[in-house]
Amino acid sequence: MNTSHQPENLDQTLDPEDWGELRALGHRIIDDLFDDLQMLRDQPVWRPVPESSRQQLDVELPVEPEGATAAYEDFRRYVSPYSRGNNHPRFWGWVNGSGLPLGILGDLLAAGMNPSVSSFENAANLVEEQVLRWLKQLLGFPQTFSAILTSGSSMSNIIALAVARNLKACGDLRAGGLAASPRRLVLYGSAESHSSIQKAVELLGLGSEALRRIPVDANFRIDLATLNARIDADQQAGLQPFCVIGTVGTVNTGAIDDLDQLADICERRNLWLHVDGAFGALAWLCPEMRPAIGPLQRADSLAFDLHKWMYLPYDVGCVFVRDAAEHRRTFSTTASYLAVAPMHHDAGVQHFADYGIELSRRFRALKVWLCLKAHGARGFECQIRQNVWQARYLEARIQAQRYVQLAAPVSLNVVCFRFASPELSPETTDALNLEIVARMQEEGVVFASYTVLHGRPVIRVAITNHRSRHEDFDRLVGEVVRHGKELLMAPAA
Amino acid sequence: MNTSHQPENLDQTLDPEDWGELRALGHRIIDDLFDDLQMLRDQPVWRPVPESSRQQLDVELPVEPEGATAAYEDFRRYVSPYSRGNNHPRFWGWVNGSGLPLGILGDLLAAGMNPSVSSFENAANLVEEQVLRWLKQLLGFPQTFSAILTSGSSMSNIIALAVARNLKACGDLRAGGLAASPRRLVLYGSAESHSSIQKAVELLGLGSEALRRIPVDANFRIDLATLNARIDADQQAGLQPFCVIGTVGTVNTGAIDDLDQLADICERRNLWLHVDGAFGALAWLCPEMRPAIGPLQRADSLAFDLHKWMYLPYDVGCVFVRDAAEHRRTFSTTASYLAVAPMHHDAGVQHFADYGIELSRRFRALKVWLCLKAHGARGFECQIRQNVWQARYLEARIQAQRYVQLAAPVSLNVVCFRFASPELSPETTDALNLEIVARMQEEGVVFASYTVLHGRPVIRVAITNHRSRHEDFDRLVGEVVRHGKELLMAPAA
Repeated sequence: MNTSHQPENLDQTLDPEDWGELRALGHRIIDDLFDDLQMLRDQPVWRPVPESSRQQLDVELPVEPEGATAAYEDFRRYVSPYSRGNNHPRFWGWVNGSGLPLGILGDLLAAGMNPSVSSFENAANLVEEQVLRWLKQLLGFPQTFSAILTSGSSMSNIIALAVARNLKACGDLRAGGLAASPRRLVLYGSAESHSSIQKAVELLGLGSEALRRIPVDANFRIDLATLNARIDADQQAGLQPFCVIGTVGTVNTGAIDDLDQLADICERRNLWLHVDGAFGALAWLCPEMRPAIGPLQRADSLAFDLHKWMYLPYDVGCVFVRDAAEHRRTFSTTASYLAVAPMHHDAGVQHFADYGIELSRRFRALKVWLCLKAHGARGFECQIRQNVWQARYLEARIQAQRYVQLAAPVSLNVVCFRFASPELSPETTDALNLEIVARMQEEGVVFASYTVLHGRPVIRVAITNHRSRHEDFDRLVGEVVRHGKELLMAPAA
Repeated sequence: MNTSHQPENLDQTLDPEDWGELRALGHRIIDDLFDDLQMLRDQPVWRPVPESSRQQLDVELPVEPEGATAAYEDFRRYVSPYSRGNNHPRFWGWVNGSGLPLGILGDLLAAGMNPSVSSFENAANLVEEQVLRWLKQLLGFPQTFSAILTSGSSMSNIIALAVARNLKACGDLRAGGLAASPRRLVLYGSAESHSSIQKAVELLGLGSEALRRIPVDANFRIDLATLNARIDADQQAGLQPFCVIGTVGTVNTGAIDDLDQLADICERRNLWLHVDGAFGALAWLCPEMRPAIGPLQRADSLAFDLHKWMYLPYDVGCVFVRDAAEHRRTFSTTASYLAVAPMHHDAGVQHFADYGIELSRRFRALKVWLCLKAHGARGFECQIRQNVWQARYLEARIQAQRYVQLAAPVSLNVVCFRFASPELSPETTDALNLEIVARMQEEGVVFASYTVLHGRPVIRVAITNHRSRHEDFDRLVGEVVRHGKELLMAPAA
């Protein structure tokens, strides 16, 4: 290259010339953000994205600088009013979390400090290590389990199943791949297990057929007799069962598989027990819920999220693994440029990349650390308990109302129900309930999503929201009944 | 469960009782954060973590609340002063990014808005779609490529290689797994390709043996003759070559593989060309660098990071895929609770989970959107160009100094060199250079890391820093020479 593009000097920066302006913008953002949160209850849960936003979000790449303040003003105008809605007190869609104010500041501080939490002595690594110890304490796990924070249970499931796959196969899978396993590996989960399990199984090269979807009982729990029979059949067919997935809190109904029985089966058959506890595992914080959850700690690995039922902003999840050495063996590499030569300040440091997929890792531990300190384990326990009781409150309201019916047992914080009237056919009821969900979403008073149970759509409410009050659930039932009746009166509309 | 744990009311929240206190804390955080950034140049790059921090980061789980302000004060005391150092003007270790002030505020806003960027009509989805279009424009890619933001190139590499694996195999890999491929799948990368490629290959069940590590030439570029010969040999052995990985900017020396030749080979042999451009791809922003990079757009997939050479805070990376339909086919699932029934506000929305591994996805697009608007593509172009010229400036300084020697050609923003003196044996020189790196890190004036080239440790400087000035590189050379001479005088110390 010639020197025709050589810059005039080599001392430019993207830091602001005028720090005062950016600082003022920071203060303005803090005010706007807290204003929004304080006034949230009086706003619609959700608004459609207007044409003006769509146009502004469809313009060409900006080549010349517009400046920070102008960029923020576009955000306020075109983006921030049109969110998904999950911070709102009356949002109960898709098991989305509702956000914690101090967690928001935690992500600000994490981005400011900006470490890659990977190796080399620094306090961010120690904070993540401490958070992982705290989370094991919270969920009653021994400290001998290895652990790592992740972007969520999708990633946690992949990590756990990769370790299970590599450990249980009779061959060196890291070097030889699945071809090194003399028999085809198969694993088991209920028909209600989460789609991320299927995605993990496919990613790992096992193929979705390897995931045996075992039917559930009337309470949406994995059927143990069928599970046992299927494992027997697979073994007799020359396949190698290696893992059973138990779910604590299914996404559809919040059902909890019988962990004690699953652990017995796995112990007897030398299988890995992975527990997907994405939101449900957090109910362990409430001592009175523990009998319903069962012996979580018998799992060989556990996946759970803190951005769902611990209300933290997206993203933060976690995975625990019993066999810490195998966990490390699955993911550790020694790159020459990261090799542990006698660098004084790298010895004894946890290399997080040895326990997961990512080498660059953001400091998501910080918001967890701040919020656990600020609210205490107690704060989360009380709030989770409240959500469980809110689900029961809603259940009771539904049972007291003649136009709505429960569609599944309520075991945690998920309530599935339908608008129903004796004169309606099941098909008409299906269509009516989908329409009720859509109308409620559009009106923005309350926000539920739907799911399909026994082939029929039902209204689903997942309560991982620390802003909801009991009156919000009164409102929900009222809205469902109102919309249902209106639709009944004018079915063609 | 009985009612003995029933809460007194169902209306508690983790929002603050006194918003004023939290708001004041937010303002204080903004001030502290910008104070830190403004004064960064006068601080040490890195400090060891003191015993007081270690003790505070080794206490039990807090059960009772300490409050937000107390939590933040502990952060200021025990955590924030002891970072990894990568925001600092004189940090050039491990290809870590240096952070953008507006990017920090972007992560604040993303955590505040707190969407899961997955589905359903909302502005966050549209922002990510726009950012992806902008990134394709920035790198000269047609809009027909599919794309998704990721946590970084580790994840981007996994996504790209999963699509390549599923598409190129002669069988239904999603359903049947690798067992559905009649022949063993193998792929190719240079000996200098990144460790995350090996991790991806292992995760995908291919086994690290399937990754053929082709030797490099004197410029650390993949040797094309050897590559061709190896592909021939594998085909003759009944294996199925399916992918070649080109690197734009190797982690060790910043070398750029010959993309045109690799694309020809892949086209002729019907192989997938994946390009790992983690940091190097961004040099495309400078038109004069394009001949050196080669035809990036001939790739079937490209992985790159915005938290490295676009300076954004961790984490944000991206992947492009030529075959958008196959990209979707690899990852899309239809879960009943997410099934696209006639919900008015989900039709036409990009379901990002169909293009990656994660269902819950944080709003990492926002900081990219804000910073591209505020600084313009031009701002990034100028800054990347400056880093390239800073590398040349450093190269010239090294060549002008008799005690230091270049250890590899400088093609982008990475400079590898050694302290050297004619009377020293290679082994003594090795030990001396490692000791120089360690001493510099400890003193905190300049921060470089090391790598191993041709079996010998060298000092490596990776310039993805928008705060460095030319004088900082003078200082680096001065420090290397000073430490080297001091160590020569007192080698036993």
